[in-house]
Amino acid sequence: MPKQYGQGCPVAKSLEFLGERWTLLIVRDLFTGPKKFQDLLGSLKGVAPGVLSSRLKVLEDHGIAVRRLYSDHPPRAEYALTPKGVELRPVVRALAIWGTRYLSHDRVLVHNRCEQPIEMAYYCPSCDERLAADEASFRPTHTRAKNGRRRPRRVSQAAR
Amino acid sequence: MPKQYGQGCPVAKSLEFLGERWTLLIVRDLFTGPKKFQDLLGSLKGVAPGVLSSRLKVLEDHGIAVRRLYSDHPPRAEYALTPKGVELRPVVRALAIWGTRYLSHDRVLVHNRCEQPIEMAYYCPSCDERLAADEASFRPTHTRAKNGRRRPRRVSQAAR
Repeated sequence: MPKQYGQGCPVAKSLEFLGERWTLLIVRDLFTGPKKFQDLLGSLKGVAPGVLSSRLKVLEDHGIAVRRLYSDHPPRAEYALTPKGVELRPVVRALAIWGTRYLSHDRVLVHNRCEQPIEMAYYCPSCDERLAADEASFRPTHTRAKNGRRRPRRVSQAAR
Repeated sequence: MPKQYGQGCPVAKSLEFLGERWTLLIVRDLFTGPKKFQDLLGSLKGVAPGVLSSRLKVLEDHGIAVRRLYSDHPPRAEYALTPKGVELRPVVRALAIWGTRYLSHDRVLVHNRCEQPIEMAYYCPSCDERLAADEASFRPTHTRAKNGRRRPRRVSQAAR
């Protein structure tokens, strides 16, 4: 059972369960396609089956991964990321870029064409533009109408 | 003492210590400027002083944060991120974006100008270009010369 931080911050709320040992490595391994329990047990050397099972359950409960049967006779299941899980890719990529720069000195993530190291940056899909840190900020998702009622912020469909 | 995963993967190596409970929240709090031990104890409700102290020690050992005296009489110290620590910003940002989208329904990270939600994307500083996932790949940092000797990959200074 993940421990709570008791903070409203989205980073803290994410880390309450993503921060548990093994969890982001399971997500990493699912980026390359659905995996059977045994596959994960093999790629994550040292994970106890009970721990793997509990982490997968938490990922299912949060709608990050789904367990699905790919054969009825005999019954065989595999785990796959949901779209919500696939959206964790920037988190894992950012860790990979930082880790290759500072911890693994044997490889580096590069742009295929120019072969130079790459970074991760803020990007506005609506304007198709890279942004500096000071060009982005947190805004409430709801605004108050003149009558005091809470109403959703207008966000174009294209950007969703 | 962080537990090892025994994997060469840069994500696993990063998570061995960054994945410990509280660590990324300490880094998050240091992004807004240097903090005293007491400040962190106040912003991270529920952290035990011994745990905070041990996490800060690990961050210092990895060159992510430094402890520095800002007054000799009486001696007072504060913790600040190093450039290596500041480079963890994309990791925390990616968690913030994911968390605001899926866990905190009260706010969203938007582009100041158009007010639409933003994402994080691969970016090549050398080409000043946003990249799709398949335009980047891991390459060895060293290549083999004809005589079999290991030699560093050529990487332009601009991109370092």
